[in-house]
Amino acid sequence: MLSPLFSQYPTFLVFLGVFVAMVLTLAFMPPFIRFLKSSQIGQQVRDDGPETHLVKQGTPTMGGVIMLVACAATVLIVGLPTVETFVLGIAILLTGGLGLFDDASKVIHERSLGLTPRAKLVGQTAIATVFVLAAVNFFGVTPTVTIPFITTIDLGILTTILPMGESGFAIPWLYVVFADILLVGLCNAVNLTDGLDGLAAGTVLIVMLVMAAIAYRTDLLEPAIVAASLAGVCIGFLWFNAYPADIFMGDTGSLALGMGLGCLAVLTKTEFLVIIIGGLFVAEALSVMIQVAYYKKTHKRVFLMAPLHHHFEKKGWSETKVVIRFWIISGVCAAIGFSLYFAYSMIGVA
Amino acid sequence: MLSPLFSQYPTFLVFLGVFVAMVLTLAFMPPFIRFLKSSQIGQQVRDDGPETHLVKQGTPTMGGVIMLVACAATVLIVGLPTVETFVLGIAILLTGGLGLFDDASKVIHERSLGLTPRAKLVGQTAIATVFVLAAVNFFGVTPTVTIPFITTIDLGILTTILPMGESGFAIPWLYVVFADILLVGLCNAVNLTDGLDGLAAGTVLIVMLVMAAIAYRTDLLEPAIVAASLAGVCIGFLWFNAYPADIFMGDTGSLALGMGLGCLAVLTKTEFLVIIIGGLFVAEALSVMIQVAYYKKTHKRVFLMAPLHHHFEKKGWSETKVVIRFWIISGVCAAIGFSLYFAYSMIGVA
Repeated sequence: MLSPLFSQYPTFLVFLGVFVAMVLTLAFMPPFIRFLKSSQIGQQVRDDGPETHLVKQGTPTMGGVIMLVACAATVLIVGLPTVETFVLGIAILLTGGLGLFDDASKVIHERSLGLTPRAKLVGQTAIATVFVLAAVNFFGVTPTVTIPFITTIDLGILTTILPMGESGFAIPWLYVVFADILLVGLCNAVNLTDGLDGLAAGTVLIVMLVMAAIAYRTDLLEPAIVAASLAGVCIGFLWFNAYPADIFMGDTGSLALGMGLGCLAVLTKTEFLVIIIGGLFVAEALSVMIQVAYYKKTHKRVFLMAPLHHHFEKKGWSETKVVIRFWIISGVCAAIGFSLYFAYSMIGVA
Repeated sequence: MLSPLFSQYPTFLVFLGVFVAMVLTLAFMPPFIRFLKSSQIGQQVRDDGPETHLVKQGTPTMGGVIMLVACAATVLIVGLPTVETFVLGIAILLTGGLGLFDDASKVIHERSLGLTPRAKLVGQTAIATVFVLAAVNFFGVTPTVTIPFITTIDLGILTTILPMGESGFAIPWLYVVFADILLVGLCNAVNLTDGLDGLAAGTVLIVMLVMAAIAYRTDLLEPAIVAASLAGVCIGFLWFNAYPADIFMGDTGSLALGMGLGCLAVLTKTEFLVIIIGGLFVAEALSVMIQVAYYKKTHKRVFLMAPLHHHFEKKGWSETKVVIRFWIISGVCAAIGFSLYFAYSMIGVA
């Protein structure tokens, strides 16, 4: 609602997005934690994680609910939702809803299972596909992937045009498949990263600040406000999620944040750069894939434990040290990615 | 050495300052920690702190030495030191030296005492005075204090001009006294803040990033590189100082960082804004002053324990939660201060 009033001060709006989202999260999280505690709704910790994590049993989860509510409220208060941000918001909220269904079923059935992995992937892929098709057909997103300073790959060469509307409805198959893999991959990568107190919230915070800056510089003010809001809710959430955590974000939070990151990358045409900016999430996901593949082949392990953060815990780093060190690594990845974006936007012609 | 080569890309130089300083700190800290451990040089923890802190006994200190060396090396590598940054660097290093003398005497005499408080204050005041006089007479700093959107106070009304050189050497007494209080105050405020693992490093990191941005926007590129380097060494130091800390920065680090912050505020004419930007340091220092003054008068305490971070520990927040929450508060202070600076520089006329 505020963005038309302050359209002369777009920087202010982005800052305000961070601030309002943080304040709303700080305000609504304590009653939510009290409610969850009084209803005895706690996290069931996987019993295949490090032994020290069993103390986390009983910590309330689903903090992502408040994060998503605070984010949506902030976007409505600070921004003036365009069709673009509306669809972006729906994609984030639906993915959060998918996570919530999973979180809630874990709580109800008192075990750490929820939806089948296949059902989750199908749901995420559906959401990603609809978003990508909307982005290509209605938001002017081209079906290309730019690797700054190297090349731009055209993924629109295999496109079906359905006879809908005046100019038809395009389905660029290759780009859709690529973007689906990216978006669903990021969802699950952030989800895997969410295994230590403050780890996902802190790393997503850093990444979202950079995405807000990129969207802002790409003249996508409203998506920049969404990214800023997601950064803000992460700050507010960290207040409670700092070690030892009072609450976890759950799949509700981590899947939604991952989907939000992927969708922002599509809108800002940083589908390649997001792999660098969110390099830590990618590394966490790769560690699991490598571990599983290698174990299937050789019955040996590459990492002491996957995902990566558990490997370093097993190597003797304390949980708090792993978290801060991963934040630092994430900051370095984000800075490298942003520098590439910045340099390319200033001087680059591929 | 690099800044003339890349003078067209000043933003790049500031980013590079953060990065190089971080890398140098990451590289040199481990051998330094091994050296201190093998020489059994550990911190003597004050026995009037919280009981839980006695486990910190024996953790090596004086990590500030590497931070200052890395910062100096970065400024030489990335920047092209002007007289301005040379004097700024000397002020920071001398203050670090003062802290080092204190840290070393604590280690040698195996008790947590070192220099007398009076001797420390005299040394800091001398350094601050020389810096402020140099700033006013050679770097074009006016003896005024601007409170954005409200007023600019002229602290040059009581000025003595010594007959030196062509235009004389000005001693604006009021401004010197004000700046001395600010600089020495910030030194000791950061020193007081340095009481929990990662607390000082994380908060100074945030504040220095903002000071780098302010200096950059004020067209003070070389001081911006100094601020960026100080931010970078804080990131590198956090890698080791994260809870549970492998090393402390000691007075060497905290006093030097506080002095650096104050000097940067003088150079960028943000003597008032730095009180907001570094609001957390101010609050920590005030908590001690209030506690002591109130106790002397009434024999009662305002805080469960001073400085402020111990108060919240006594209230039941874990050390790690206090640290992350204080980082968040520091980030909010820095954002408010930067927004005021930004708004004032864009639209403000007092």
